[in-house]
Formats: sequence, structure tokens, C-alpha cells
Amino acid sequence: MLDSLFKPRAVAIVGASTKELSIGNVIIRNLQKYGYKGEIYPLNPTAPEVCGIKAYKTLEEIPGEVDLAHVIIPSKFVPQTIEDCGRKGIKAVIINSAGFSELGEEGARLQEDFLRRGKEYGVRVFGPNCQGIINSDPELKAYCNFTFTYPEPGYVSVVALSGGVGALIMQALADLGVGQRLYASNGNACDISIPEIVRYYGADEGTKAVILYTEGFSDPKAFLEAAHQVTAKKPILAMKAGRTEQGAKAASSHTGSLAGVDIATELIFEKTGILSFTDEGEMARAAMAFATQPIPKGNRVGIITNTGGPAVIATDVLVSCGLDVPKLSERSIERLKESQFPEAALENPIDVVATAGGPQFRGALDVLLHEEGVDSIFINFVTAPFTDTHEVARQIVEVSRLGKKPIVCNFMTDLSQERYQITRDILKKGGVPFYANPSDAAKAMGALTRYGRLKQRDIGKPQTFANVDAAKARAIVEEARQAGRSVLSATDVYTIFEAYGIPVAGWGVTVNTAEAVAAADRIGYPVVVKVDCEAIDHKSDMGGVAVNLKDAASVQATVEDMQRRLGHFGTLKFFVQKFLPGGRELIIGATAERGLGHLVMFGLGGIYVEVLKDVSFKIAPVTQVEAEEMLSSLRTAALLNGVRGEKGINREAVMNIIQRASQLLGDLPMIQEMDMNPLMAFADGAFAVDGRIRI
Amino acid sequence: MLDSLFKPRAVAIVGASTKELSIGNVIIRNLQKYGYKGEIYPLNPTAPEVCGIKAYKTLEEIPGEVDLAHVIIPSKFVPQTIEDCGRKGIKAVIINSAGFSELGEEGARLQEDFLRRGKEYGVRVFGPNCQGIINSDPELKAYCNFTFTYPEPGYVSVVALSGGVGALIMQALADLGVGQRLYASNGNACDISIPEIVRYYGADEGTKAVILYTEGFSDPKAFLEAAHQVTAKKPILAMKAGRTEQGAKAASSHTGSLAGVDIATELIFEKTGILSFTDEGEMARAAMAFATQPIPKGNRVGIITNTGGPAVIATDVLVSCGLDVPKLSERSIERLKESQFPEAALENPIDVVATAGGPQFRGALDVLLHEEGVDSIFINFVTAPFTDTHEVARQIVEVSRLGKKPIVCNFMTDLSQERYQITRDILKKGGVPFYANPSDAAKAMGALTRYGRLKQRDIGKPQTFANVDAAKARAIVEEARQAGRSVLSATDVYTIFEAYGIPVAGWGVTVNTAEAVAAADRIGYPVVVKVDCEAIDHKSDMGGVAVNLKDAASVQATVEDMQRRLGHFGTLKFFVQKFLPGGRELIIGATAERGLGHLVMFGLGGIYVEVLKDVSFKIAPVTQVEAEEMLSSLRTAALLNGVRGEKGINREAVMNIIQRASQLLGDLPMIQEMDMNPLMAFADGAFAVDGRIRI
Repeated sequence: MLDSLFKPRAVAIVGASTKELSIGNVIIRNLQKYGYKGEIYPLNPTAPEVCGIKAYKTLEEIPGEVDLAHVIIPSKFVPQTIEDCGRKGIKAVIINSAGFSELGEEGARLQEDFLRRGKEYGVRVFGPNCQGIINSDPELKAYCNFTFTYPEPGYVSVVALSGGVGALIMQALADLGVGQRLYASNGNACDISIPEIVRYYGADEGTKAVILYTEGFSDPKAFLEAAHQVTAKKPILAMKAGRTEQGAKAASSHTGSLAGVDIATELIFEKTGILSFTDEGEMARAAMAFATQPIPKGNRVGIITNTGGPAVIATDVLVSCGLDVPKLSERSIERLKESQFPEAALENPIDVVATAGGPQFRGALDVLLHEEGVDSIFINFVTAPFTDTHEVARQIVEVSRLGKKPIVCNFMTDLSQERYQITRDILKKGGVPFYANPSDAAKAMGALTRYGRLKQRDIGKPQTFANVDAAKARAIVEEARQAGRSVLSATDVYTIFEAYGIPVAGWGVTVNTAEAVAAADRIGYPVVVKVDCEAIDHKSDMGGVAVNLKDAASVQATVEDMQRRLGHFGTLKFFVQKFLPGGRELIIGATAERGLGHLVMFGLGGIYVEVLKDVSFKIAPVTQVEAEEMLSSLRTAALLNGVRGEKGINREAVMNIIQRASQLLGDLPMIQEMDMNPLMAFADGAFAVDGRIRI
Repeated sequence: MLDSLFKPRAVAIVGASTKELSIGNVIIRNLQKYGYKGEIYPLNPTAPEVCGIKAYKTLEEIPGEVDLAHVIIPSKFVPQTIEDCGRKGIKAVIINSAGFSELGEEGARLQEDFLRRGKEYGVRVFGPNCQGIINSDPELKAYCNFTFTYPEPGYVSVVALSGGVGALIMQALADLGVGQRLYASNGNACDISIPEIVRYYGADEGTKAVILYTEGFSDPKAFLEAAHQVTAKKPILAMKAGRTEQGAKAASSHTGSLAGVDIATELIFEKTGILSFTDEGEMARAAMAFATQPIPKGNRVGIITNTGGPAVIATDVLVSCGLDVPKLSERSIERLKESQFPEAALENPIDVVATAGGPQFRGALDVLLHEEGVDSIFINFVTAPFTDTHEVARQIVEVSRLGKKPIVCNFMTDLSQERYQITRDILKKGGVPFYANPSDAAKAMGALTRYGRLKQRDIGKPQTFANVDAAKARAIVEEARQAGRSVLSATDVYTIFEAYGIPVAGWGVTVNTAEAVAAADRIGYPVVVKVDCEAIDHKSDMGGVAVNLKDAASVQATVEDMQRRLGHFGTLKFFVQKFLPGGRELIIGATAERGLGHLVMFGLGGIYVEVLKDVSFKIAPVTQVEAEEMLSSLRTAALLNGVRGEKGINREAVMNIIQRASQLLGDLPMIQEMDMNPLMAFADGAFAVDGRIRI
């Protein structure tokens, strides 16, 4: 538990300073300014007091118990200080100082040293090279941080790998008037990790929504597990920077980590139901809606507007975010007539017209709250000079409480005018999220709706197929490992596939003409014959592949011909396999991802993967729902269902193979890469016709 | 010229009101509040004065000359008032009143009536159902508008179809501190049109950049021509709402126009070099950069930052906007050492570290201004409490003046603190555009860079091919028109194509076996034979198409068979055409677009157009550069160059056909639809093998 960190009853500042604007001074002033209810103990070797508070020379001297210490001293003194903290019974430290792993070998040694001592003395470490934490709880008001935004209490908790972005998000939330609960930015994160903090936020009753900024995870699996638990209870809004190659380079340069462009983080977000963003402003504005509004049950939005163009923009953006602007029911249109002016447009958007006042907005909102065909409500409210805007805001707030549908408001006005500040405050106190323009407001509604979809999506549990021979597969891999072979032979690969019930186009390995013909007879014609010889790299170019052989005579002639032409390369084997023309060429692939397990890829083979890069990824284990998503999320998904009169493929068969492959990968974590390329799919089944496994 | 509208020396308000917050009152107060330097003449039937100004009962009574009149009276009185204005010598009126074409037939009749009288008396009409105009020129200060944002003088001029969005943009610019020059929102736009206003802004020397909001154009060609002229002189930033079907529906509902989802507006923007936006906030923020910064010569950006994470986000967004973050030259890195702290990262982004002050920012900026490998500069500036932020801002401003590269700044701070407001004002007065977060700032830089590309792109003039027989094509179309045929016969279509030098796969129309064989002999084998009979709709399904006929005997047998099986439908003709296997199936199409001419479409045929909808559009006439863009902008463009060892197609031949088709469309404006589907392309040429023309 991180209570010592987030709920400290007393804080020591090791390295307290009398120098204004220095970190050792700012943290104490922040605690004071924010109204910290606990004890503050500055440590300074010479000054008798810092910021008007009695200072101590050593931790030992401090009379009371201390939960948390800030450490703001040169890095070489840090290990000893951690030990001293342990002796004093301090359970958590925030090391603000830099000069550790981010600065090379000597720093890394120091980091290891203090970590070891921390473990020995039971001191948890936050940081180093970090900002700290904030807890806005009115009973505590702990501002253990050197930033300069003083958030009002609220329900949104923030954790950010980068202090700069953390401060930015905190500022954006403050500018929007969104209250905050907990804040943490843990820099090098050598001990207390982001997964641990996210889990703590998940357990914190005062937190209604979590905002996360990261540039990648050092232990992705730990995060995945933590996120799974938390998203079951509350929304996590997250942004992962370093999406582009150059962005990732910038990230690894400032954090010293080796992060590349990873798709794994986005997949973790998807798998755990985290709402992902690529724009920090959009994320903060979405948080404003999450802080007060319920999650919509569907994507049907009703729009109320007192102006034309902004409603058009809002409609465009809402539709782009996947929302629908449906027709209203006859009953709703009838009911609207009771409150609206004759020139109002009684459709969706409802145009209450520029002269609308409180009763018109109230009437329209009330109708939409009762309209069964609508899941959420969007209000465009421009403050015409002749409108009693306070009354409109009051009516909106009042009626909004009568329903359970989320409402967002585009409140277009000049906030430098006092009159409209009052109107704004009515909306704010009433818990109606409002934005300065229609696109921003519509995107916030889009985020709520997208999250509603995520919540409803139940990916289920991965299937465990019973009729698999895991021991056989493991034995094959083990044998290859012991023999020092990292790339498995075709026989090994197909045997492993078949051990997991993955259909492989009938095959056999033969050493001469007679065996090849016998194998072909057994498999059934037509067949493919491929030469198999270590010395021959590019079989096709060497004339070592013959397709569509229709009878025994052709097989015999082909094998004899290959023996004649290629025999001088050494002993030849002949791989005979069923030839399967006319199917849809697919590809299933997998790669091991550091610290996470395997990523599974699915796509259409050939030009679709080569030219269009049209593929879909999931983290193993892949469930039935996820396998279905892999098929339907391709841009070329329509091709799977058949076009131009072709029959569609057997989707169930392909989904089954994806899940069996996923089980195989789970059982054999030593597999680095695996693919079935192509997997030929037909109306009545699918068969791997080539495969590769690297361990 | 619209000087009477935008530079009125005296304004009459017909329908001036003593009722506060009414439009007839607000406009007078706005003129007063904004400091209008001309004469104001309120007209009111009873009040002796309005807003402290002597009021008149009729226009005749007004002692002086009047340039502009606001008309704010019930619609039925408007036609007579326009006539009265004419008699008074008033050259322009702003009709704020509603109740015209947007309200049905009776309103449309009134609109026609006042328009006719306006024309008769030489009165230009702005509106009706509109806001009005603003001219911020300190010598004039004309606020002929009932909105409530009072823009500071500046260089950005705004024209918006929707008053609501116009007000929104004006507010966003004011919030950002961007000065404005002219403003216009002309509602029903029955006389003075958006093209005319854009042209006026183009000629106005005080306007450096134009912002346009529209939901479509009633006369797209007029706009295209105006925009062509203006973009040669200054940037136009534009947004077209109603992008989605539901958005377009909302637009047509509030404007009464018939706008559907048109792609034409975006194509007009592209053709004329207008910078297009889909987010009104992003457009306003971009305007902030355009108002003060030069246009970058290329896409290479140098980044200076005093914090890590925000630079990662900025890098991601800059790269997503098409910018490159290149390595710095050795010389720049050497020079950086002179100004930077030892812990600074001397790469790109340059991390000057959190403790950087004025000299470090100045030094880094100076290096980037001199670095030849960089076209623009992005600054991440977070205001750490210990930083002399005024000094940093001053140094940034000072050095920025020494170079000619655009600079944008992400200025992350708490603007509720007075200290940072001062810092902000230093940046603002210094003409350095700044934004509250890295994504917003990076997108503004992205817009500058995108515009730089637009400026550099010269689409050239359309080619006119000499060896065409326009008269022949026209005669064919004319004959079909007179015969009442809207769909041309295959013979007509191919003859027209060939008249314009568009290669058609060899073809002939025959009436019996002997002719068919003779035609096939002439064309060369293999051939396709298709039955041609009005009574047979679905040739393929009826067995009326035979492909890949390799010799005369096959042709003869096929024709005989078709005669036997299909003869009972009536007289049969047989269309014989060269069979061209193995090429790349392409499609060129064209449709007439109301008031604009033709849109030309290009794509890969078959599943690429059916499933992937991967097509590219241009407005005819299409130039060589545009034809090249059509080929290379496809998502599947790589397929044109050949994949998996195939040869690529002859791009020049295809581009030539696109341009010849474009010339054909220009000569035959009565063509409603035309396509070549498929056009078969090979390494050595391309041939239409099927075509359709509808007039």
C-alpha cells in the first residue's frame, strides 16, 4: 500500500533550502500554500528555520513520527540518506534529485545502492529525478511537489511519467475548472511503478476517473494486470507519446530508456478497456465530462442548438466520432411543440432559434431526456445579447438532474464579460461540462460514447482447447533448442501445428521418387513438390518448386528432374504437399514482445499485407471476440465475405486457428516468431500451407 | 467594389430601437462602443433619439450623405425600404431582418422583389438574415454587427456563411490575442456573395490572411476564380462544414439550401491552394501563426525544449503533420556548446534542461536560425518557478527578429498568475505565437508547413492536345441529344474517345458471322465477342459474352451459338473487341457538378474501387501535375509500379488519357457522366476496353 506516500501525516524535507524558488524551498512553500494539515520537518545543516518552520540537522532529531521524506540533495549522498530514513521509520521517500540511471553508469550504481538499502530498511522509493505527488483531500492537502498549479479538490487522479506533461495536464484540468484528487509524476520510477500507482488509484474511493500519460512500460505485463483490475471499476483515460519513430527517439533520449515505436502499448490499452488519446488537450477536456457525466448506453445523440453553423460542425464531429443523430419520435416532436417557438426546427438537431430562452432550452432538454431513441444530449448555447443567459443555464442545470443521460454543452461566449462568467459558473456548479467551441465539445461527447462502447465490449476468456498435444510440441522445441537450432524445420513446424489441431495442407517428407509418389498418392492430387536441402537457399529461383502436379507420373518426372539438376548440392529430400488453388490467401503471425508475451497478427496475404499493410494485432491470449475483431477490423474485411460472386471464407475456421495458435504461443513462451504464411481459406475450412517458427 | 459596405462614412439604422439588447439598439451601441468615426443616423417612427443620437423618421430627412443602411424591420416592408435607400443615394444595405428565402415561398418572393428594386436603384444588398460587417481600421472603427466581441485591429480578415461560426471564430481569435481586420457574415447571401467578399479581402492591403467558413457554394465556379486570384497574394484558411451526411442535412435544414455531402468544395480548396481545416479551433490557432510568421521553405523543424515529455508529444504531432526532425549539423552542435549547460542534450530536440534561462534559449534559437538544415523552429517553454521567464521571453523575441524562419512556441504556464501574464505579453508584443500545449502549437506549425507546400505546388496550366476532332465528338453528342438518347451507344462512345486520341482496344460492330470473323481478323486474336441487342439487359447472365476467343473458328462458333440461343430477342449485333489479358485494371470516371464543370475520378478497378473505395478526384481541367497526383495519391499507388516482380504500368500513357478525357469534358459540357471502366494498363500503354457516356 502506498498510503505513506499519498497520505503522509508528516513530511521531512531532506535538503530544505532558504533560497527562494529552489526546489528545497518551493516544496515547503507549496505545502504551506496548499494548506497541508500534517507536520512539516525541514532538514538543513545550518539554518535554524526554513520558511518560518523550525529546521533540523538530522532525521534523528525530529521529535515526531514521519511517513514521507523528500530527498533533494546531491546524488552521492542519497544512499546513506535512504538508510537514515529507514532507521527513522520513514516508509516512503520522494527523491527529487537527479543524477541516477538517466546519467549513465555511475548514476545507475548509486540507484542500485539506494534501492538495495531501501529494500533492507523497508523504505519505498518514488522517483528519483521526479516531481512528487499531490493529494487534494481537504482533510490532508498534501502538495509534495514543486509545480505551481494548485488544483481544487475533485474526482480525477493523474499519473504521468513525464513531469512536464503531468504539469500540463494538471494545468489544463485547472483551466477547465475540473477538480483533481491525486497526482503523481515519478520520473525514473525505479521502485514505485506506474502499475502500482494505477492500482492505488483504482482502490481510492475518491477517484472517479484516472488520467495516465506514458511513453511506454518497463513491465507491460504488470501494467496490463493492474489496468484490468482498475478499468473494471472506473475509467482510465490514457495517452502514449512516442507514437512516431522520431517521437520515440526523443522519448528514449530524455528518459534514457530503450523505447522504440511500440504498438504493444496501444494494444494493452485496447485489451484492458483503457480509453486512448493522441491529444493531451482532448484528453483533459474529456476528463471534464467523465468527472460529472454518466456513460451513455449507446451512440444516439440528440442536439439542441440556438444557432445554425455550430450545430453543423458539432454534427460533423459527432458523426466522425461514431455517433448517430437519429430522427426524433413522433411523440417527442409533439411534445416539443408545447415549449418551442413556431419558427423552431423540430427535428434533430432541434433548432430552438436565436431568441430561445430558459423555457425553450428546458423544454427541449426535457423532451430529449425522455426520448427513448437518444442516449446522450449535446447543447449548442451561444449567448445572444438579448438572451437571459443565467436563466438558460439554470434551466439546463435543473432539468439535467432529472435524467440519467450524459449532457455536454458548447457554451460560446465572451468570458471576459462578467455577465457570462456568472452564466458559466452556473453551468460549472451544476455539473454540466461546457467547452468553448463545438468541435471540442463534440469530441468530449465522442470520448464518453467511445468509452460506453469499451465498457459494453466483453472480450470474454480465452478458450482452452482440450485435444492438443502440448507435450509433443514442447519436446520438439526442446530438442531444437538443445541442438542449437533457432529456426525449426518444416516437419517440426507442421507437427507442432497439428499437435494443436491447426489444419495443415496434407504433407510428407520423402527421400526418393518412390516415397514421393507414395506420399502424393496418400495426400491426393494435385500436389506441390519442393526440394529440401540445406545448401539450397532460394528453392523457387533454382527450379526447386513445382506446383499443381496432377498425377503420379508428373510427381515422378518432377522428382527425377530435380535429382538430375540439383543433386550436386548434396542429399536431397522432397517435400510433398497438397496443392490448394483458388482460396483466399491469409497470414497469421506472432512475435514475442519483451515483458508481455506474444503479439498475434492477422491479415490478408500477398499484396494486402505487402502493399496495403492491412493487418490487425492482438496480445495473446486471443479470445473468440478478439479473433472476430481481428477479422472484421481489416480495411479489406469485405474480401473475407466474398466479392464479385465469390464465396466467402469460413470465418469460424480461421478464428479457431487464431485461438489455437494463441494457446500454442502461451504454452511455448520460448517462441520468438511464428507464422502461417499463407493460410489458405475456403468456404469450408482453412489450412496452413507454409509455416515458420523461430525460438 | 464593396467600399460602401466595408468603409461606410455614414450609416443609417432603419429600425433603430430604444429597447436595450434588441438588434436595432445593439448595433448602434456597438458602433458607439467600438468608436465609429463616421456618422450614425437612427431611424425610428416615434423616438426623438436613440442611444443619445438624434433619430429621424424617414431616410429623406437625413441631412448628410449615407453610404450604408442597416435594415431591421419586418420583412414585408423591406422592398419599399430598399427603394427608399436607392432614392437617398445609399449604395449598400445590410438586411439583418429574417423572413425571406429561408422561410419558404412568400419570403422568397419578397427577396426577389427587393433584389429587383436594389438592382434598379443601384443598391447592393448584404444578407438578408445576417449579422453584418466589422472594419477594425483605427481610422474608421465600423462595427456594423450585433455580435459582442470587439476585436483589436490586426491582419486577419474573416468571412463566414454562418453568423454563429463567424462569432465563434472571432471569439477564438480574440481569446488568442490575434488582431482582426475585416469581418463579414452574410446570411442568405442573395446579392453580395462570398466570392465577392473574398476578392475584396484579397485586394485589401491591411489583410494578411483570410479565414473562411462555409457550408458549400451556390456558385462554385465564381468562388474558384476569386480564390485563384486571392491565394496568389495571401493565404486563405478555410473550413467547410457539412462533411458528413448528417452534418450536410443539418446544414441544409438551417440554410434552406440543397447542399449534400459534396467533395467539390474540398477539391476547390485543393485546386486553388486554400489551406483546409476540419476543426475551427485549430483554424483559429493556425491564424495566430499566419498573422506574424513567415511561411517555412521546407518541412525540417528544429525543436528547443526545457522539458522532456512535451517535446515527445510535439515531435509526434509534428511528424504526423508531415514535418521532419532532422539531425543538426556538426557546426551547429559545436556552436550550441558555447551557450548550453553541460547536461543539455545537443541533438534535435535540443534539451536546454529545466534550469535553462535567457542565454540558453537565446543561444539555441540563434543556432537554429543559422542552421541550414532547418526550416522552422518549435520552442517548448515550461515556466519553472526558478526561471526568469521574462528574460527568456525577451531573449526569444529579440533573436527571433534576426532570422526569417517561422517560430511557434508552446508556452506552458499558469496564466492566472500575474507574473506569467507579463511573460505572455512579452511574447505577444514580440510577435511570437504561443499556445497552451504542445499538440496545439505543433498543429499550428503543421499548418504553416502545409501551406508552404501548397505555395510551392504549381499545378501548371492544362494541356490542349492538338490532334483531336472536337467537331466529330460534338456532332455525335448533338445527334444523340436530338434523338432523345441520354445514354450513348458503344460505337458512339468509342468514336468519341478515339476522336480525342484516347486509345481504345481494337473493336468493331458486326451483324453476322462473316462480319464478326472479318472484324476479329482485322483486330487480331484473342478477341471478346459481346451480343448487342436492346432487349438484352444482362448480357453476361444470358451467355451473351465470350472472352479469349483465339481464332476465327471460335469466333464463328460463338456467333452462331449466340444467334441460335438469343435470336428470339430480336435482331442481334455482335460487338467484337481485342481481348487484353494480364494488364492492370483501372477506372477513369467523370460526373458533372452543378455550377462547377466536371469532377474527374481515377482509381484501380475491380475490388479496389468496389471494396476499398480507393479513388482520387480532381476538378476538370486536370493538368499534368494533377494527373500525376491522381496516380500517386491512391493508397494502392504501389500497385501501379508493379509488385511481386510484375512490371509497372505506363504512367505517362494513363496521365495522358486523364488529360485527354479532361479536354473532352471541357469541350462537351453537356456530358453528365462518363467512364472508362476498365481502362487496361500495361507496361507499354493503356486502352479503354469499356466505356459509357450519359448526356
